[in-house]
This record gives sequence, structure tokens and C-alpha cells, in this order.
Amino acid sequence: MIPQDSIVALATPSGAGAIAIIRISGQDAIPIADSVFKSIKNKNLVSQKTHTLHLGHIVDGSKTLDEVLVSVFKGPNSYTGENTIEISCHGSTYIQQQIIQLLLRKGCRMADAGEFTLRAFLNGKLDLSQAEAVADLISSDNEASHQIAMQQMRGGFSNEIAKLREELLNFASLIELELDFAEEDVEFADRTQFHELLNRIEFVLKRLIDSFAVGNVIKNGIPVAIVGEPNVGKSTLLNALLNEERAIVSHIAGTTRDTIEDELVIGGIGFRFIDTAGIRETKDYVESIGIQKTFEKIEQAQVVLYLSPLTPKGGTLDAENIKEVQIEFEKIKNQFPLKPLIIIGNKKDLYSDNEIEHIKKEIPEILLLSAKNKEGVDELKNQLLSFVNTGALRNNETIVTNTRHYDSLLKALDEISKVKYALETNLSSDLMALDIREALYHFGMITGQVTNDELLGNIFANFCIGK
Amino acid sequence: MIPQDSIVALATPSGAGAIAIIRISGQDAIPIADSVFKSIKNKNLVSQKTHTLHLGHIVDGSKTLDEVLVSVFKGPNSYTGENTIEISCHGSTYIQQQIIQLLLRKGCRMADAGEFTLRAFLNGKLDLSQAEAVADLISSDNEASHQIAMQQMRGGFSNEIAKLREELLNFASLIELELDFAEEDVEFADRTQFHELLNRIEFVLKRLIDSFAVGNVIKNGIPVAIVGEPNVGKSTLLNALLNEERAIVSHIAGTTRDTIEDELVIGGIGFRFIDTAGIRETKDYVESIGIQKTFEKIEQAQVVLYLSPLTPKGGTLDAENIKEVQIEFEKIKNQFPLKPLIIIGNKKDLYSDNEIEHIKKEIPEILLLSAKNKEGVDELKNQLLSFVNTGALRNNETIVTNTRHYDSLLKALDEISKVKYALETNLSSDLMALDIREALYHFGMITGQVTNDELLGNIFANFCIGK
Repeated sequence: MIPQDSIVALATPSGAGAIAIIRISGQDAIPIADSVFKSIKNKNLVSQKTHTLHLGHIVDGSKTLDEVLVSVFKGPNSYTGENTIEISCHGSTYIQQQIIQLLLRKGCRMADAGEFTLRAFLNGKLDLSQAEAVADLISSDNEASHQIAMQQMRGGFSNEIAKLREELLNFASLIELELDFAEEDVEFADRTQFHELLNRIEFVLKRLIDSFAVGNVIKNGIPVAIVGEPNVGKSTLLNALLNEERAIVSHIAGTTRDTIEDELVIGGIGFRFIDTAGIRETKDYVESIGIQKTFEKIEQAQVVLYLSPLTPKGGTLDAENIKEVQIEFEKIKNQFPLKPLIIIGNKKDLYSDNEIEHIKKEIPEILLLSAKNKEGVDELKNQLLSFVNTGALRNNETIVTNTRHYDSLLKALDEISKVKYALETNLSSDLMALDIREALYHFGMITGQVTNDELLGNIFANFCIGK
Repeated sequence: MIPQDSIVALATPSGAGAIAIIRISGQDAIPIADSVFKSIKNKNLVSQKTHTLHLGHIVDGSKTLDEVLVSVFKGPNSYTGENTIEISCHGSTYIQQQIIQLLLRKGCRMADAGEFTLRAFLNGKLDLSQAEAVADLISSDNEASHQIAMQQMRGGFSNEIAKLREELLNFASLIELELDFAEEDVEFADRTQFHELLNRIEFVLKRLIDSFAVGNVIKNGIPVAIVGEPNVGKSTLLNALLNEERAIVSHIAGTTRDTIEDELVIGGIGFRFIDTAGIRETKDYVESIGIQKTFEKIEQAQVVLYLSPLTPKGGTLDAENIKEVQIEFEKIKNQFPLKPLIIIGNKKDLYSDNEIEHIKKEIPEILLLSAKNKEGVDELKNQLLSFVNTGALRNNETIVTNTRHYDSLLKALDEISKVKYALETNLSSDLMALDIREALYHFGMITGQVTNDELLGNIFANFCIGK
């Protein structure tokens, strides 16, 4: 099952940079690298120790392609578990291409997406959920998703599943043994202990399944619907939220990422802001498509931010304006009674103390702030964070973020419920044994103890080349 | 002069990938890395040998940022000549940022553009022209420019200059010695030998200066003007030229670069195709702006490709059409008698044998081809290459590509001519000594034996961060 050929790929992002890394893995990785490498000290790579670095040139016949540093890793002490070479070359795309082409001619094959990690899995360096976490880790762009991926990659999730699976397997073998002695009517498996185990498994599975709602949202960013018309200061507010976070990274030239305007990281958690058209039109066209769409977007969101069209009139408060805001606010609350809702009044700096008091009396829930002066922005951040159930995150609990795992957990829970029912109603052991096997199968699917080519193909196709 | 602080930067291209490399260089690079690194085998980085790799985690207090491989290089055996650490982490931008921020907090400073290579220069690992070649190497995108940069980085150019400089220096010291004994009228420097040396220097300088025309063009791509109206098949022809070259790189996923339609690499040499509007309008508006612009572009080009508007009429040849092509062709030849010119008739596949014979009789210089069927495309490539003076390239001669070097060489030649004149006309030795010193100064500017902060600032500002 484990392939014997040597694969090669660029492991660093494509494009020009100071350094690029070309990775080779496979039984013949070291002799292949040796055939194109001329060490400065006339060293032979094959006879070098693992985890050593060597300066020299990549040569194609009489032509020198580049001065490089070569890292030697000898299996099983490598990422893939195989012999591995990493060539650190100058980061020109021309050099990258030339070296890869040379290695292809020398007997390497272009690696498929995720093939290095697939080999790590096949060689037992990682289980399947850990391998999946590698891809999550690379695509994580905030503290929360990074932390979850990191925990999963280090085996947090697998350990929990593997432990339950082993206990269940013990009981399964005892029950299967009973079936062999079916005519003698013996009970090797202690039914009370077994029931206790099933309860424990059920409890853990339910907790993991519940965590998916949080996990999924953290992985993809927490959706926040901003309800408000274009001119109420949405972008000023987004900028006010964004600016501080941005300042942290802006001095690291070359590492700042392209900012997608509507995605922010607040307190290490990613938020996705969904712009809506507002619901002011309702007064005129209750059934209009616009308002329909706004409600659909609110439905998808975890939190609603209502930017009120409250406008300072200079000195005296406009009763009509307040009334209008109250009506809209009530409308959202009635439509989505369970959805966390923040109502905001911007431009606090333009109101008099009297007016502020008046507003607070009329709309007690309102958060008055000044996006321009950054006043009240921290309070908004705290409110946003408080709505996110990150208790599990803070307590370092295992959080499920992967739809495939979620699916397997649901199926496993279903089977465990069947086993429990069979046990409680004294159904025959052979039916119970079948259900236990099914549950074990689904556990195994998560960690990769049970697997098939199609599943592996699907998982690793989502990786980048070179990983 | 050599800075003592430790600098850090991302060395791989920005963006997400399988692997990213963060590089630290400076006296305290290893202890700083040690303070955030937890080796799997509980190893202390400071006590490790140079050129070794270590698996472990980057930790920020109780938080684990990533599982990484750390390379240890001890000065002077490193790129910069200083203690250097390379952290190979997972390629998420979040992780890159977090690790760099952590290192900044631990006492590193963000590296300026090219600062690693600047330090390599200051520590005597590279001379200035070699350091400049590093940037050229990274930006090289074809075989020719890569080969020149590689040769320069390996010291080809510097060696040639340094050798001449040393010989000149010998004579200079003898002549300065003569000045000390001016009243005794002695001659320590053999005038015949000196004259011979000056001739040799002059010869080399002239050759290097001449090579700049080729070098500059190779570095930036050889400009080829395509004269022809939009509908004569320009893009089909460009595609025919491009396709084969493209096929070579297309199977290397992740490494193919964005193709700029008008830049091709043929036989390892870069060509820049400059589209012109054609000159057909001349019959109507001799002084039109369009034709003026076409001529300006032809002026800038090294080679002219004239795509004739010759069209097969099916069976019989159109005498009018041939006449028209002849007139245009003659016009270009007369305007630019020294500029290499290729005249092309496309769609060869649509002509009968008789017609082909007829065309060849009327326009003997024409290259008939079929871009669609790829017939004659190789011949065109060979013709394009034959116009490029790459003799020097093939003979591995030193080629100057850098405007700064070109400038210094011109100045040095000027001074050498003055010295020669002084020698031939028996001018006083003290004037000659001044000119020699000037020549030595310009030689030194190339290799960096003579330098100043402003010059270094200008050179390294063009580097990418992390190099």
C-alpha cells in the first residue's frame, strides 16, 4: 500500500522570494539528490547523518543551476517517515522550475496535492484527523482557528476518540466471545460496566457533536449581520474595529496579508461581517425582496449588529427619529427573539449630555459610541466576543471543526444509541455485536484506522501541493 | 561598522504555503531562538553543532504556536557570516506573523530589504558585485539572465576586475615611490611593462563595456518589434512561439508563473515583443502619428519582425497584394538599414505549390510559415536567436548587466586613457599617479573595496525583505 517512488514538489508559496524550498521524499530521495548535488566540501549526501545541512551547488551536467543548502532527513525520522531531502534554493521561479525539472528527469515524480502528508499518514507518523489538522493549520488565519487546528494536530481529538474506541473494542471482543459460547449462555461482558461505558461514550459524543456548531463557526469566522443603511457609518465602524488589529501587523513588511474588508479578527476570533440593506423599507413595501434578503442574512448570522439611523440634530432630540429606530429595533427583536442583537448609536461625540440621557431612557439597550473618536469601540468588541460561546476554547476542550468528523460522530452516536437500547431491552447479543461493530467502524473512520482510497483521495485533494 | 543586533524576516514568498521560513541573523540569534523553542528531545540550541536541524515547538509562554524544524548555523559558517537560525514553520500567514511578532518581542529587529545580504557583504562573505548578483539571480526568469547572474555571483566578474586592480595597484605603488624620490629621477616602474598593462586593461574594459549592450538586453529581454496589423495573425504567431515553451512548465503545478502575453523565452533567451500598429497607413497619411510611433518602437527594438498582410486568394496569386507587401518591406529596410529584419508570410498551408514558388521569387527574403500547423516556427526561432549576439554567453565570457558597473567601467576606462596619454607623452608622474588612483577608485566601487553608506543603501534597497 505504501508507495515506493520518490516525489518532489515546491513546498514554499509560489512566486519569487529570497528562499524557496523544494522537497523530495521516498526511498531513493537521498541518492537522487546526490546525483545533482555537488557539496562544497565534497561530501556525499548518502553517507551524511540525519538532520544535517550541507552547502553546495545543484548541477545539471556542466551547468550550475544554483548555490543551495540541502537538508538530509533519514526515515523514519522525517515528516513523511521516508528518506527526505529539502533543497533550500534562491527563490527565483526560473531556478525553482529548473531544479524540479532536473529532479523529474533523475527519477522523481511530481507530488500530488497533500501527498507528503498522505505518506506521513500511511507510514504511521500521523493519524487521519491529525493529517487533516495540518491543512486546517495552514489555512488558519486567527488565534481561535489556529488553536483548534494545533490541538487537533497534536492529537487532542484523536486521543479522546482512540481511548473510547479501545474501551468499546474490549467489550466488543467479550460480547463476540459470548456469541461463540452462545449455547452455554455465559456472560463475559459485565452488563453494568458496559452500560456505564455506553453512557460515557454517549456523553462524550454529544459534547463533541455540540462543539461542532462553535468549531465550524470559529473555523470559518463568526457571521455577524450588520443591519443598516449605507450612510449610517458602517464602514467607519468596521474601520474603527479593524484599525487597532491592523496596526499590530502593519510594521511586518512582507508578511501583511491582503485584507478582506469584511473579515476582522477581534480578540483572536475571526468575524465575518455580512452587509445587509437594512429594513427601513418595510414601512412602504412589507413584502419587498430587499427586506426578505435582509432577514435571510440575519437568519444565517450568529449575531446581529443594528446600526441605528439615529442622527444628532444639534441641541434638541428628534422624537420622530427615536420612534423610527425603536420600531425597527422591535421588528428585528420580534422576528429573531433568540438571536443576539446589538443596537448601536454612532456619533456619540455630536450629542449633548441631555440628549444622551434621553436616548438611553427611550432605548435602554442602545450602545452609544463614536467610531470616529474610537470611543465605545472596545465595549462593542467585548459585546461581540461575549456572544460567542468560547468557553470550550478557553478550557482547552476538544472542538470538532471538520464536517467529515461531525458526520462520523453522528453515525457513531446513532449506533451507540442502538447498542444501548439493545442492552436495556435485553435484545440478543448478536444484533448488539453488529451495532458495536458499526460504531467502531465510524470511530475508525475519524482516526483513519478504517479507511479506503476514495476517502483518502477526497481528504488530501484539498491540500496544497508540497504539503 | 558591522551591526551587532539580531534581525528577523520572512525569507519565503509571502502568502500561505506548505512551509514558510523565518530567518534570524545576529550575535544573539541562537539564544533568542532558544528562548522560544522547545526541542522534542529537550535539546538546547546553543549547545548544538552548526548545520544541524532540530524538531520542536515554538512556544509563547504556555501557548504553542507551531511545530517547527529549526536550522542552526554558527558564524562565520552561514550566509551572513553571523550566527543564523532558520525556522521552518507551517506556511499559514497567521503562524508566520505570530512567530515574527514573538521574536520581535524577544529582542529581534525587523530586517530591512537586503539586510541579510548586506551583512554577508560587511562580513566579507561576498563582494559587492556578488551581492548584487544575488538580487539578479532571484529576479532572473530565463536561462540567459540566470546564467549571467550565476556567473557573477560565483565571482566571475569580480575576479576579472580584482586581478586588473591588483596589477594596477602594483604599478601605482611603484610610481608613488618614484614621487618620493622625485629629485633623484629614478624609475622603479618599468614603462614598457606598464604600457603593456594599460593596453591590457583598456582591452578588457572595452570588452566589458561592449558586453553591456548584450547584457542589458539579456537581463531585460530582447526587444522585438512586430510590425503588422491586428488581423494578420500576430497572436496566433505569438502563441505558436509560446506554446512549446509553455508545455515544459505547465505540469509543474504551483510553480507556473503568470505569463505576460508579450514576453517569451526562446532557446533560454528572453524576448519582449513590442506590438506596433503597422505602417500600411503611409500610403494615405505619410506624416500620421501612428506611423511615427511605429518607427519609434522599431528604433528601440533589436530585431524587427514584419508580419506581411499577404493573404492567399485561393489558386491564383494577387499581384496587387504582393506589390503592397514589397513596398512596405522596402520602406522598413530603407528606414532602418542596419536593423535585423525578418519578413514573414503566414498561412503557408493555404497556398498552392505554384503560389509559394511565385512568392519566393518576388520576395526572396520571406519566411513562409504556418503558425496554425507549427510549420516553419522553429526556423523563425532560429532566425531570432541568430540575430542576438550570444557568442559571449556561449563562451562563458563575463557579461556586464548592471548599470552601476557599466558606469564605473566607463569612468575607469576614461582614467586609464588619461594615464596612457600621460605615459605616452611623458607627462609628470604625479599627474599620472592621480589618474591611476582615480581608476583604482572606480575599480573598487565595483567590487565594494571602496564604498559608502549611500551607495550601499541604494543597492540593498532594491532587494526583497528576507534576503
